Amino acid sequence: MRSLTVRLSAAAAVLSLAPAMVPTLAHAAAPAPDVAWDLVRDLTTQVGPRPAGSPAEARAREWAAARLKQLGFQNVAIEPFTMRAYRRGIDKAELVGFAAQPLAITALGYSGATPEAGITAPLVYFPSLAALEAAPDGSLAGKIAFIDHAMAPTQDGSGYGPYGNVRRQGPGVAVAKGALAVVIRSVGTDKHRNPHTGVISWANGVKPIPAGAVSNPDADQLERLAATGQPLKLHLTLTGQIIDNAPSGNVVGELPGRDPSLPPVLVACHLDSWDLGTGAIDDGAGCAIVAGAALGAQTSGPDGGKPLRTIRVLFAGSEEVGGFGGEAYAQKHGKEPHALAMESDFGADRVWRVITNFAPSADAVKARLVAALNPLGVVPGDGTANGGEDVGAIIAAQKLPVVDLNQDGTHYFDLHHTPDDTLDKIDPATLAQNVAAWQSTLAIVANEPGPIAAR
Amino acid sequence: MRSLTVRLSAAAAVLSLAPAMVPTLAHAAAPAPDVAWDLVRDLTTQVGPRPAGSPAEARAREWAAARLKQLGFQNVAIEPFTMRAYRRGIDKAELVGFAAQPLAITALGYSGATPEAGITAPLVYFPSLAALEAAPDGSLAGKIAFIDHAMAPTQDGSGYGPYGNVRRQGPGVAVAKGALAVVIRSVGTDKHRNPHTGVISWANGVKPIPAGAVSNPDADQLERLAATGQPLKLHLTLTGQIIDNAPSGNVVGELPGRDPSLPPVLVACHLDSWDLGTGAIDDGAGCAIVAGAALGAQTSGPDGGKPLRTIRVLFAGSEEVGGFGGEAYAQKHGKEPHALAMESDFGADRVWRVITNFAPSADAVKARLVAALNPLGVVPGDGTANGGEDVGAIIAAQKLPVVDLNQDGTHYFDLHHTPDDTLDKIDPATLAQNVAAWQSTLAIVANEPGPIAAR
Repeated sequence: MRSLTVRLSAAAAVLSLAPAMVPTLAHAAAPAPDVAWDLVRDLTTQVGPRPAGSPAEARAREWAAARLKQLGFQNVAIEPFTMRAYRRGIDKAELVGFAAQPLAITALGYSGATPEAGITAPLVYFPSLAALEAAPDGSLAGKIAFIDHAMAPTQDGSGYGPYGNVRRQGPGVAVAKGALAVVIRSVGTDKHRNPHTGVISWANGVKPIPAGAVSNPDADQLERLAATGQPLKLHLTLTGQIIDNAPSGNVVGELPGRDPSLPPVLVACHLDSWDLGTGAIDDGAGCAIVAGAALGAQTSGPDGGKPLRTIRVLFAGSEEVGGFGGEAYAQKHGKEPHALAMESDFGADRVWRVITNFAPSADAVKARLVAALNPLGVVPGDGTANGGEDVGAIIAAQKLPVVDLNQDGTHYFDLHHTPDDTLDKIDPATLAQNVAAWQSTLAIVANEPGPIAAR
Repeated sequence: MRSLTVRLSAAAAVLSLAPAMVPTLAHAAAPAPDVAWDLVRDLTTQVGPRPAGSPAEARAREWAAARLKQLGFQNVAIEPFTMRAYRRGIDKAELVGFAAQPLAITALGYSGATPEAGITAPLVYFPSLAALEAAPDGSLAGKIAFIDHAMAPTQDGSGYGPYGNVRRQGPGVAVAKGALAVVIRSVGTDKHRNPHTGVISWANGVKPIPAGAVSNPDADQLERLAATGQPLKLHLTLTGQIIDNAPSGNVVGELPGRDPSLPPVLVACHLDSWDLGTGAIDDGAGCAIVAGAALGAQTSGPDGGKPLRTIRVLFAGSEEVGGFGGEAYAQKHGKEPHALAMESDFGADRVWRVITNFAPSADAVKARLVAALNPLGVVPGDGTANGGEDVGAIIAAQKLPVVDLNQDGTHYFDLHHTPDDTLDKIDPATLAQNVAAWQSTLAIVANEPGPIAAR
């Protein structure tokens, strides 16, 4: 902790963060790390949960546009679009008969609905998605499938691919086997009674069945009960609804560079959150980091002035249910050239690695990034940067260069998509390290005169 | 961890735990630590939550009586009584207007009920119980009081006295000030969205008002929102009911000593749990520890035989809502002499301290206890042992000697009375240390021929 503080102070000195040197900003007195903290604090406290397509998400857009203006951003705009939303109803599950007891459950996004009174059916335990896939088609008629799995924490979050498929693909597999409904072990690494929600990827034309996730302790319970060999029966109530053409929108704002005719650097996060928590790590922190760093980088030009290029901030809407905001941004802004794109959407733990998709011709820029991030404890990685859901569409459309500042994900899936995603889970020191890493990065890429080639 | 294992092995050797030496027990092959783990695993898994006065508590009694018989206990009996129960209804709270958002809430035991549609009223923030006490009588008419506090973890659990009063006494103070309802910060030390329930001590004649507890992150949210100065308004729905003359009961069982005419040693726990979790640390672990240790002590007599005195196990009912089981035990068994009483009801973390209420004439016995517990990392303390809720009445009636084996409570109030009180929170290694400490203690007190005087 102490050594991190020392490093941050050193970085702040190098980057000339002294407030007196940011005279053009309305809140010039607040150093960048405090801007970030205040932003995520107020968004999560005063708006709270902001599910995609909901009135709360609309309040978040109004709040964000007002705050960005207050912070000195220009060309601030709300860019509306419509999307398919999921509105939670009653979520309830209880074993009946043997080991009768309630289970902590959440509906998954785009779940089908049970009747108000729920359904009662045998629960069939599958230790993995592969085990369910191996079941004969039609063998689950009139039954509820339970899919277990063995997700464990990883620093780079790579467990979310394979184990996340239990949630994304598992419900569709259950439909193929004829199941009445499906329950999964939460895609998460904690041991709290807070189930993890998240979206289902139904194939086109599939009629959704009720689909929920129980917390890890409840899944442990089901695993132990299945091992007794006694038949299990579940009473399940999930009454949420799928809503077409729900109103959503993106919020954009700019800090114009010395040469506004040059393509801007795009930095993104998403403004919506799942409804269970207040969206602190997913992704209030991301919005706080990109906005705080964009402001912090305003002294990165020659003589502590503005950078060469405009930095455009995108607070995307409706990321959680399928990246609608990123798609809408690419549709609206696809004809404007961009210099580079970045996204922050993996919590608020420290940046530990930097990767890019730069072509060899940009090796020198990459080397400067690596050198600038080294004092913050960031190492270069071998992978290929891809941005993320909010910038993926514009990156693909324009083959943009990308820098990924990978955050430590060891604890991310303890909180991800749960009621526990709240402000207290953010460590102000690691949030400040993120802002410093982003600011160091923006100081380089927003002052780069020539285009950076992507590979 | 490793050194603990070494110590336990040493203790086991000293206490002659070798299974072959327990020939009279049905499950002689299972060493005592496994008996304890299996007991808490199966109680929390197969019975699950077992609130006082509920059908689930009745199932727990049947389960416990059958398991005790299976383990070789004799004179196993269910001793019924009736009590005042609280049956949870719908628990729901949401801010409306400014910062509209749901809050994670639980009703407190013996809360008054709102109408099914809930109530909506201004929420008035009080930073402490003392601040509420200082409000003028009648000043909260038509309003909901929120009582904050600053509980922090302590090893000996001493925060539960003063901060627990916010829950026990706070609702009554709110009534005196004319409040329509009351919400408190959970009496707990964690940062999860799992509110802590627990019982209210209404004074005689007071008409209960709706009373709930929000989780710590929600209380943090209310604290921040109150600091904005904006008026807050809460929509509160708590529909649980108070049920008079609900059926409950104790379960008792004995392991007869070499001289069954001598007064028995009483070891107790409680079988009921709050409904939110599965009652693993509160108090499935306690029942597992006392039963496991009683069995383990069956080789503590001369030549590895039975101890001198009978050990009687009491699995009390209805502790959580006011110690009804302990009272019922004292009424039924108050005329039978007892040698000594002990209770385990503070989780499953390691025993760190031993205290007694022995008179100076029993200093030698106490010294032997201290010496026996020393290899397990247990230190002698200066306080006076008092047993607890399940043995308090019989101790008071008979002025019994008591040994308290204090468990480390640093993390206890992270889980206490929450949905998170589940099996995964028990470390088998510390559970085994508890069993070893109890077994060492019983090996001494159940082989003591003369009475031990209490001070």
